Amino acid sequence: MTAPGELMRREIAEQPDRWLDLVADRRAVDAAAEFLRDRLAAGRLSGLVFAARGTSDHAAVYAQYLAQALLGLPAAMATPSVATVYGRNVHDPNSCLVAVSQSGASPDLIATLESARARGGPTIAFTNDPGSPLALAADVHVPLLAGPERSVAATKSYTAELIALHMWLRAVAGDPAGRVDADIRALAEHGRTVIRRSAGLAPDLAERLADADRALLIGRAFGAATAREGALKLMETSSIAASGWSAADAKHGPLAAVTTGTPVFCFVGERTGRASVEALLPDLYGRGADVHLIGNDPEGSGLAGILPPDVADELLPVLSIVPVQSLALELALRKGLDPDRPLGLTKVTRTT
Amino acid sequence: MTAPGELMRREIAEQPDRWLDLVADRRAVDAAAEFLRDRLAAGRLSGLVFAARGTSDHAAVYAQYLAQALLGLPAAMATPSVATVYGRNVHDPNSCLVAVSQSGASPDLIATLESARARGGPTIAFTNDPGSPLALAADVHVPLLAGPERSVAATKSYTAELIALHMWLRAVAGDPAGRVDADIRALAEHGRTVIRRSAGLAPDLAERLADADRALLIGRAFGAATAREGALKLMETSSIAASGWSAADAKHGPLAAVTTGTPVFCFVGERTGRASVEALLPDLYGRGADVHLIGNDPEGSGLAGILPPDVADELLPVLSIVPVQSLALELALRKGLDPDRPLGLTKVTRTT
Repeated sequence: MTAPGELMRREIAEQPDRWLDLVADRRAVDAAAEFLRDRLAAGRLSGLVFAARGTSDHAAVYAQYLAQALLGLPAAMATPSVATVYGRNVHDPNSCLVAVSQSGASPDLIATLESARARGGPTIAFTNDPGSPLALAADVHVPLLAGPERSVAATKSYTAELIALHMWLRAVAGDPAGRVDADIRALAEHGRTVIRRSAGLAPDLAERLADADRALLIGRAFGAATAREGALKLMETSSIAASGWSAADAKHGPLAAVTTGTPVFCFVGERTGRASVEALLPDLYGRGADVHLIGNDPEGSGLAGILPPDVADELLPVLSIVPVQSLALELALRKGLDPDRPLGLTKVTRTT
Repeated sequence: MTAPGELMRREIAEQPDRWLDLVADRRAVDAAAEFLRDRLAAGRLSGLVFAARGTSDHAAVYAQYLAQALLGLPAAMATPSVATVYGRNVHDPNSCLVAVSQSGASPDLIATLESARARGGPTIAFTNDPGSPLALAADVHVPLLAGPERSVAATKSYTAELIALHMWLRAVAGDPAGRVDADIRALAEHGRTVIRRSAGLAPDLAERLADADRALLIGRAFGAATAREGALKLMETSSIAASGWSAADAKHGPLAAVTTGTPVFCFVGERTGRASVEALLPDLYGRGADVHLIGNDPEGSGLAGILPPDVADELLPVLSIVPVQSLALELALRKGLDPDRPLGLTKVTRTT
């Protein structure tokens, strides 16, 4: 058995290599893009519906925003309970059902994809296991190529999902493969730096947060997906009562949970949406919050300048999550917990 | 100025009367139903898209499930940031945009509704203010008839939204008005009992939770909306780090935030989805959680039996939230906070 956190540490570190694996073998991504482009060209596509749970749900929310921002295509999140709890098939056959799942094994996602198939709708699955039921049931399968993920806390499978979904939607949008591949290669270089710097900052940050019982994470649009994924990491590894919010929703109540000393992580790296997060800062400081900006300010020290200033908003979420992954790891270790094996959580979640 | 919590207490108490107001004047609900039925009959409707924030977002999630379960019609949640942050119009003109908002004044919801109109899509607004921009911009407006809501913590406007959305979707489904009205009248009677019993239980419960820093609320499908709304009430009034989850998502990490003594509220009143929540109980007890079932067990004492056993799942969410409303009120008062005026929160939230 490995030492506590060893798996998560390795899997955080290897992320840029896994992104490059997707660039090295983009056949499945291209096939999935062609599949969608054919249907778009034929005027037979009204939108995308993503089905996912947990960490993969956050990757799917990123893709939901990207599809809408990049393609102007309506994109919604499925409610898998409708298929399993209410036994209703509500799939619009003109929508493409896109399932995103590390394991590809959860019964509710399989049921949702099957209901789309039963209606004759197109289906695509992004999973890390090519032999999984979801992969086999979908018209097109895109393997995440993340390799076995052994820590229960998902890290490399999350960013592999972001990269695969990004490459897919850019290809659908008609961006030349060469340009997209170059973007990901540059991102991988940046990724190594962010991972190294995050690992350097995380122990001190974990020390500072050691007694924190709660935390808020706030972003907007793409950044809201990052905020929710970051909160999940802190919850599952370090048992913090963390929650992630869109800046738009934070004003509707969650801010009231911020009291003196509450750690609040604000994702301000993206040009779009940044103003919306920054607008909350006076209130957060007024409440005495322990505010941590995660951004790309060239003059910013620590987390505020940890992200490169020249990465497009559409790719920044892949890097923005890294400092929180590192923090979740170090915080768990500092608390004597094993982030690779959180009490009572399993790697593959089977929900009916 | 009223005493702390006085407004919220009154507004919780008057809820059944406000539901009856909607029954007494169902013209707007019927007009909205006819508007949708016409488009369904003409084969020009591919689904519903709900746009809402905060408490109203939870009412909209309830309606999203109800539309799918009752009508078999695809129903999605809009992402208002796409219109305001990315400036993209992604509305499918065959979808009906349904905005739900107490104030009807938030710029992002107005922008989302306007983008649907710009595409020629049908629009409906449920708001409490007939003169609000949302009400004026929509093809059809359904007033919530909740009367002025003066406490910042929304209670009666939330259940009025649930009732109005319920009546509307039942009418679209072709349920005779007389039967629906009778259901709501019976519900109002049950509501008075649940409100009285909740008020009786809440002070002791608040005493027990006085030192709780965090809480989890868990439901499934309809119950997931209740869980999220309950968490928001506890957060905004009592500054608890509360979060609400679908039982399906709770297994993906949030359970790790449950430690010895953590209060966990489980919504088990609905027949559908109940098994999914109950399946988590062994794990919750194993973690030493302070589990509170909110259900309709005739043998159950306290919250476990607070709901009537003979109310349909489709209406139970209107009652299930009441015990949490009362608890949020009493807990805030016990902590010396004013739930009517939480620090730094405003009644009308304007998000761009």
